[in-house]
Amino acid sequence: MKRVAIQGRVGSFHDIAAHRYFEDEQIQLICCDTFEQIFENIAQDPTVIGMLAIENTIAGSLLHNYELLRESGTAIVGEFKLHIQHAICCLPDDDWDSLCEVHSHPVALMQCRNFLAGHPGLKAVEADDTAGAAAYIKENTCRGWAAICHVAAAARYGMKVLEDHIEDNKHNFTRFLVVSDPARTDSLRDLEQSNKSSLVFSLPHEEGSLSKVLTILSFYHINLTKIQSLPVIGHEWEYLFYVDVTYNSLTRYRQGVDAIRPLTQELKILGEYADGKQTNS
Amino acid sequence: MKRVAIQGRVGSFHDIAAHRYFEDEQIQLICCDTFEQIFENIAQDPTVIGMLAIENTIAGSLLHNYELLRESGTAIVGEFKLHIQHAICCLPDDDWDSLCEVHSHPVALMQCRNFLAGHPGLKAVEADDTAGAAAYIKENTCRGWAAICHVAAAARYGMKVLEDHIEDNKHNFTRFLVVSDPARTDSLRDLEQSNKSSLVFSLPHEEGSLSKVLTILSFYHINLTKIQSLPVIGHEWEYLFYVDVTYNSLTRYRQGVDAIRPLTQELKILGEYADGKQTNS
Repeated sequence: MKRVAIQGRVGSFHDIAAHRYFEDEQIQLICCDTFEQIFENIAQDPTVIGMLAIENTIAGSLLHNYELLRESGTAIVGEFKLHIQHAICCLPDDDWDSLCEVHSHPVALMQCRNFLAGHPGLKAVEADDTAGAAAYIKENTCRGWAAICHVAAAARYGMKVLEDHIEDNKHNFTRFLVVSDPARTDSLRDLEQSNKSSLVFSLPHEEGSLSKVLTILSFYHINLTKIQSLPVIGHEWEYLFYVDVTYNSLTRYRQGVDAIRPLTQELKILGEYADGKQTNS
Repeated sequence: MKRVAIQGRVGSFHDIAAHRYFEDEQIQLICCDTFEQIFENIAQDPTVIGMLAIENTIAGSLLHNYELLRESGTAIVGEFKLHIQHAICCLPDDDWDSLCEVHSHPVALMQCRNFLAGHPGLKAVEADDTAGAAAYIKENTCRGWAAICHVAAAARYGMKVLEDHIEDNKHNFTRFLVVSDPARTDSLRDLEQSNKSSLVFSLPHEEGSLSKVLTILSFYHINLTKIQSLPVIGHEWEYLFYVDVTYNSLTRYRQGVDAIRPLTQELKILGEYADGKQTNS
C-alpha cells in the first residue's frame, strides 16, 4: 500500500486530492501539520510519497512550497488539479443566529471574502487547515463557532452544513504536485509518457538573458505553460525563475534543457511527469 | 496638499510608505478598509492619489491588486520599497503571562510564523490590518490580546512593545505602487525621468509566443526586472503576463512596446515611472 504524506488531516483538500490522484489504489495517509513535515517524512523514509498544493487559480502560487521543493531535492512525479468549493458548517445544535466566530485556513477565509463581508457578526479566525477547524469544533464542542471547509470534511466530522458553495469565485482550482525521492520516480510514473516538466534557474542580470533561454526552448518545441519570477531571499529584487513546460518528445525536451544550461545558473529539473487534467470535486 | 488614499489606518505600513515617498510634502491620508476603496476614491475624485502594496519579498505578489490596477484604468506614477519589521505589543497593564490571543493582518501573522510557533499559548486571529489591530485593542481595552504591527503603530496607539523584530526573515521588503488618474500623471512624475514601466498582456497559446515578445524587448534594450504569469479567472490555466521592465531611453522603450503590440493581446501600459530605491524603516 502506498503511504502518502499530506498537509492537513482527513477531510482536507489534500486528502481529497490524494484519493482522487490514486483513485485505483489503496493509500494510507500520513497527516502532517506543516509542508516541511511532508519533506521530512520522505527524507526519513524514501518509500513515502508527498502531495502538496503548489498554486491556486485565485490565491496564486504557494511560494514557500516552491522553496521547500527546490531545497528538498525531491522529484515531481505527477500533478492533480482539484476544483475547490467551500461550505460553512457548525455543531448540529448551533445555527446562524448563535454563531460568533468562523475558523478556517487563511486562504479559505480569503476565498470567501464576499461571504464574510455579508456576515459582519462572524469574527474570522485563522486555523491550520480547513478540515482541522471542523474537527476541532466538533471534538471540543465549541458552541458559537463555525468552520469553513469542504462538505466532505463537514460530513466526516459530523458537522451541520449551513450553506455550501460560499466561495466568491466559482472558478477556483488548486494544483497539487506529487513528489517522491528521486531514486523512486521510475516506479511512480512512466518517464516515456511524461509531457510536462518543472524547471528552476536563476539568470545573470543581463539584458535579454531570459529571452535567450525562452527562445532556445521554443526552437526545441518546448512550450511554456507557466512562468514565475521569485525574489531571492537575501538578495532583494533579484529573481529565480520557476518555469513549467510541456513537450511532445522527451528527447527533444532533454536536448533543449542541455542547450539552455550554459546560459543559466543553478538550473534544476524539479520533475518530469504527465500533465494532470482538471476535475470537478 | 496632496490627498493619498491608502489601505489601512494611521500607523499602517501603507501610512509609513506614503509619508516616506512624499517625504518633502504635506500629505493628507484617506484611510480605506479595502484596496477596492482606494480605486473608488480616485474614480470619484481624480485629484486623489493612491498608494498600494503590490509585492513582498517573502509573501510574493498581491495578485488581487494586479487585477484591481488593470481594471481601474489608473496609471502607476511611482514605486517605493519599504523594509518591513514587526513588533508584538499589548496594553500597558498586560504582559507575556496574561496574553491569550494575538491579532494582526494574515500576511504579518505568516511572516512571524517562527515567533508564533514558539508561543503556542497565543491564538492567532486575523485582523484587517496591523495597526488597526493595535488601535482596536487599545480603544476597547482588550485585556489578554496582543497585536503584531510596526513599532511606530504601537507607539501611535499607546501600546506597550513586548518585543521588536519578531519577523522570521530579516530581508523582508514590500514594494508599494503610487497610482493616479491617467490624466494627472504629468503633475506627479517627470516622464523624461522615468526608467521603469509595468506592462500587462496576454498571449495566444502558441509555442514560443512569450520568447518572441521578450526577444523583441531585448533588441530594444529593454531589461526585464520581473515577470509573473497569472491565471485568467474563468479560463483556468491560461495566463496573463505582468512584466516590469527598465530602460535608459524612453523613445527606444516606446518603440519596443509598439513592436510587440501586434504579437500580444490586450497589451496595457500600467505606468511609466522612476524606479524606487530600497530603504530601511
